[in-house]
Amino acid sequence: MKVIWNNEIVERSEVKIDMEDRGYQFADGVYDVVRAYNGKFFTLNEHVDRLFSSAEKIEMALPFTKEELKQLLSKLIQENNIDTGNVYMQLTRGIGIPRNHSYPDSELIPPVFTATTTIVPRDQTKMDQGITAFIVPDMRWLRCDIKSISLLGNIMAKHEAHKKGCDEAILHRDGVVTECSSSNAWMIKNDTIYTHPDGNLILPGITKIMLLKVARKAGIPVKEEVFTIKDLEEADEVFASSTTIEAMPITHINGNPVGQGKRGPVVEKLQQLYVEAVEEQCGQIR
Amino acid sequence: MKVIWNNEIVERSEVKIDMEDRGYQFADGVYDVVRAYNGKFFTLNEHVDRLFSSAEKIEMALPFTKEELKQLLSKLIQENNIDTGNVYMQLTRGIGIPRNHSYPDSELIPPVFTATTTIVPRDQTKMDQGITAFIVPDMRWLRCDIKSISLLGNIMAKHEAHKKGCDEAILHRDGVVTECSSSNAWMIKNDTIYTHPDGNLILPGITKIMLLKVARKAGIPVKEEVFTIKDLEEADEVFASSTTIEAMPITHINGNPVGQGKRGPVVEKLQQLYVEAVEEQCGQIR
Repeated sequence: MKVIWNNEIVERSEVKIDMEDRGYQFADGVYDVVRAYNGKFFTLNEHVDRLFSSAEKIEMALPFTKEELKQLLSKLIQENNIDTGNVYMQLTRGIGIPRNHSYPDSELIPPVFTATTTIVPRDQTKMDQGITAFIVPDMRWLRCDIKSISLLGNIMAKHEAHKKGCDEAILHRDGVVTECSSSNAWMIKNDTIYTHPDGNLILPGITKIMLLKVARKAGIPVKEEVFTIKDLEEADEVFASSTTIEAMPITHINGNPVGQGKRGPVVEKLQQLYVEAVEEQCGQIR
Repeated sequence: MKVIWNNEIVERSEVKIDMEDRGYQFADGVYDVVRAYNGKFFTLNEHVDRLFSSAEKIEMALPFTKEELKQLLSKLIQENNIDTGNVYMQLTRGIGIPRNHSYPDSELIPPVFTATTTIVPRDQTKMDQGITAFIVPDMRWLRCDIKSISLLGNIMAKHEAHKKGCDEAILHRDGVVTECSSSNAWMIKNDTIYTHPDGNLILPGITKIMLLKVARKAGIPVKEEVFTIKDLEEADEVFASSTTIEAMPITHINGNPVGQGKRGPVVEKLQQLYVEAVEEQCGQIR
């Protein structure tokens, strides 16, 4: 399999990450995941823009232009024959020897960029049937707007949910739902869609932005307002969104059914609108 | 230079970290730093115990016993001729392919352990003259008791301090001082020493524990109580502690002198007591 390592597409076996890469020792890096359907990227510009923006927030620069990156990514999925799948890409602040908390001089220490591909088919059955969630305190840092690799808080939350037999963790701070452990969180009440406003507590999800756009265009009332774990008990529908899972119904929370305990009509409508947006860029989903 | 890679001491150039090591993609790992004086480790048991404890907090197990690790570490500093210096060691949850937030089965995916050495002489001039600090909001996660590699919040704070021309960042949550970006924070007022109590907001520093012990033994009043950034303005002395910097006076905060703007008598006394503790284990400091 081919991967990107810095400016080149190489065999995966050639890549050697240094034990003192700052990504490995300090989580000093950012990442993004972009999805392809039918061998074509969906919202590639948005993901590339976000990666550059994440890097800028931690005072890093990519070692190439956005255009060069897009060309590299397109070449990568071609070489790996990715029809429907994801590209994971990350940028770290390079190799710092000896280990030192201080940012090294970027003129002297180049960043390290890597990208891999994975075939990830759409899971239509899951999108129809939905997933289960467990409510977990949000223990993460206060810059969740940065898509950083400093993700231990996220994966610990996901693991807590798994230990309870659930698929995803719904995170809350003092009762206010922020997001899920690897997706944005949404609630529907009286035909209005709610999701946490952007800010330092959540990631500005690209799927979230797309869903907001298609919902508004379709005339579905949308409020970017906070809601609580108490509100979830009264919600008609709840769902999670991300690049991979699109709009995914959450049918049970902490073992209790949400609404009728199955996918509701508003989420189903959003799924259709999202697929239409995908098909506009990538052609009919097979 | 030799390093430890999993169970072996190897040449550094032989080590190859995988691009999909979970430490690299999720900061899914823990670390510790232990210091040697005169070629002998100081508080080795405590650091090894803490590494095992950090690992346990994220449901990981070391690939060897504490005794085996201690032997490996001792052999490493011998082979690298470390007289006064540090060993940095870290453990990650291994290589997860494809990338997936869920913890992999530890029966199938072994963890990755690495350790490097650095010669770090005692900086007596700095310990006499002290360092400067800048106050920065504590943006880190709510499990700072785990010595994890998920450190982006720490290094960003340190960088903020550096941009202000200061050496270290003093972190606060809603005005309460928690710790520094890579050390514990202390204040002295009316001959009483204050430091933040243990809990989820700070690391239980081994140097902190040692300083508390020697201070109490010497009859110096110590309170493990919170203090605020307002209290710092009225403090007689302020200092930071860590494995590498021992007890380090902070003489200026945000450009303003602490007390007389130079090392005070209580910190100086603590430094002496700490050196005595070191010399008891490692012999006279040269």
